[in-house]
Amino acid sequence: METTLQPPKPMFERDCSIRIVLDRIADKWTVMVMSVLNAQAPRRFNELRRAIEGISQKMLTQTLRDLERDGLIARTIYPEIPPRVEYALTPLGETLCLPIAELGRWAMANVEAIKVAQKAFDSR
Amino acid sequence: METTLQPPKPMFERDCSIRIVLDRIADKWTVMVMSVLNAQAPRRFNELRRAIEGISQKMLTQTLRDLERDGLIARTIYPEIPPRVEYALTPLGETLCLPIAELGRWAMANVEAIKVAQKAFDSR
Repeated sequence: METTLQPPKPMFERDCSIRIVLDRIADKWTVMVMSVLNAQAPRRFNELRRAIEGISQKMLTQTLRDLERDGLIARTIYPEIPPRVEYALTPLGETLCLPIAELGRWAMANVEAIKVAQKAFDSR
Repeated sequence: METTLQPPKPMFERDCSIRIVLDRIADKWTVMVMSVLNAQAPRRFNELRRAIEGISQKMLTQTLRDLERDGLIARTIYPEIPPRVEYALTPLGETLCLPIAELGRWAMANVEAIKVAQKAFDSR
């Protein structure tokens, strides 16, 4: 009887579902935009831009468009002059804020440990 | 009495601690490397590379170096011929796997909802 040894399947295959989602949401700008909208919504473009120091207009535009496409935020246009555009979380986006908040809490709790490790690494 | 209206402070200032950490950990390669090491450790470089389909040698090298510098993974060199190098989570890295696993569970549970939203967005 012939046996064929197959190489083990990758844990993260190129097109696996979890990776498609991680490609999108494991991104620092996404995390920051979602966190701002979770704390204070609805927000306008310039309010978001002021809340995230250093984000470029282009990066914020792209991040908001991607999040809207993913169904995580909703964009509402009010027919005023000049038109008012506001962004807010969708119900799906609200559910993502729970793991994002966990990540944020971890970051707050462990930033000092990371800084200590970086200093030790850099001095060796 | 004079009053000065200060613009509101950004929620995410450029040098705030949480942002320094997010810059590092909110990254898809970091999430995947940490997840593989959480499931199966210690792992060698080529085992990690096979587990994450499509990651380049350069990107894996950089991600491992950054994670080691942050104190999240440890690199052990065994004095064999040829030398064997293995990577594993540190205790600090293990604590990060809890929020990362939450993010992964969210991704698994919601990938279909995201695909539906993307299809609706693209067809409008």
